[in-house]
Amino acid sequence: MNEQQRARRPGGRSARVGAVVHQAVTDLIGERGYGNFTVGEVAARAGVADSSIYRRWGSLESLLADVALARLNARSPMPDTGTLAGDLRTYAAQVAREITGPDGLAVVRLAVALSGNGPQGLGAGDDLLAERMRQLQSMLDRARDRGEDPPDALDVLDHILAPMYIRVLFGLVPLTPDYIDGLVDRLL
Amino acid sequence: MNEQQRARRPGGRSARVGAVVHQAVTDLIGERGYGNFTVGEVAARAGVADSSIYRRWGSLESLLADVALARLNARSPMPDTGTLAGDLRTYAAQVAREITGPDGLAVVRLAVALSGNGPQGLGAGDDLLAERMRQLQSMLDRARDRGEDPPDALDVLDHILAPMYIRVLFGLVPLTPDYIDGLVDRLL
Repeated sequence: MNEQQRARRPGGRSARVGAVVHQAVTDLIGERGYGNFTVGEVAARAGVADSSIYRRWGSLESLLADVALARLNARSPMPDTGTLAGDLRTYAAQVAREITGPDGLAVVRLAVALSGNGPQGLGAGDDLLAERMRQLQSMLDRARDRGEDPPDALDVLDHILAPMYIRVLFGLVPLTPDYIDGLVDRLL
Repeated sequence: MNEQQRARRPGGRSARVGAVVHQAVTDLIGERGYGNFTVGEVAARAGVADSSIYRRWGSLESLLADVALARLNARSPMPDTGTLAGDLRTYAAQVAREITGPDGLAVVRLAVALSGNGPQGLGAGDDLLAERMRQLQSMLDRARDRGEDPPDALDVLDHILAPMYIRVLFGLVPLTPDYIDGLVDRLL
């Protein structure tokens, strides 16, 4: 099977199971909150066997980390607009859209829950954060290569991501375009 | 019983029950994470009857909100140093000490969990946030009365509290005095 054929057939049983299980987890977090459901309930909702979940993810904690990673990373690719201000504004707007969308609060709360939930959860949260920070650093490195003077990745976390995460968690929404651009302008 | 006598006897059975139940909740959150214990388990840990908890707090959710409120409010009174910079630095350092202390992560995670956990949890989170914002606004109002030019309370949330909360949740600690003062200086 060559690349083109693979692109035409992204599915297959494994991908379908992945998609329905991820959606079942997102739905259950939205309905019940983190920590209030079991692997068995995920399996029942997704219409797959418990053993399929344990074989693929090993534990509920690993499955939850996989869902959070997929949502926060794959769905918000890093922009490359040609300017630092443009990149940061686009990036901030993407994150805002993701975390204020239908499943947004569930995803943010999942990331938070994983970040402090014992060694396994902590590890999952660290991976999540490390991957996100790596992508962000690449964007900032491109700005430096163009001769711009980018902030540190941790400053972006502190003054763009953290305010948006906390406002979503505390229900202080919507995040308006003016508010989001204001966070970027203040940082730059 | 006059005021002085009351002050000498802050305890009594009700206060003792309150203290042991609060500590049991804090311990269980630290050990198991939010959402992974019942009223019965809190009661057993505290050495009181289930009915005592239901009579006083009504539900696990209300009890959790009460614990979060008590920890985040009563233990961090607002400073009054005579200058805005002094007040904000002292306040930020107090919050940092509370959220990086032995039970700090548990308290922050509890506040986050309550903030998005359905109508009852959301209401508890709203109360928590509203009370915190009211105290903060009083401090900022005093600065304005002195002729200083204070930021909005929401700017303090966005650029001092949110970064510290997110760093604790993501395990990016310690929060050093330089880091905390830097957040204040950047905002002012």
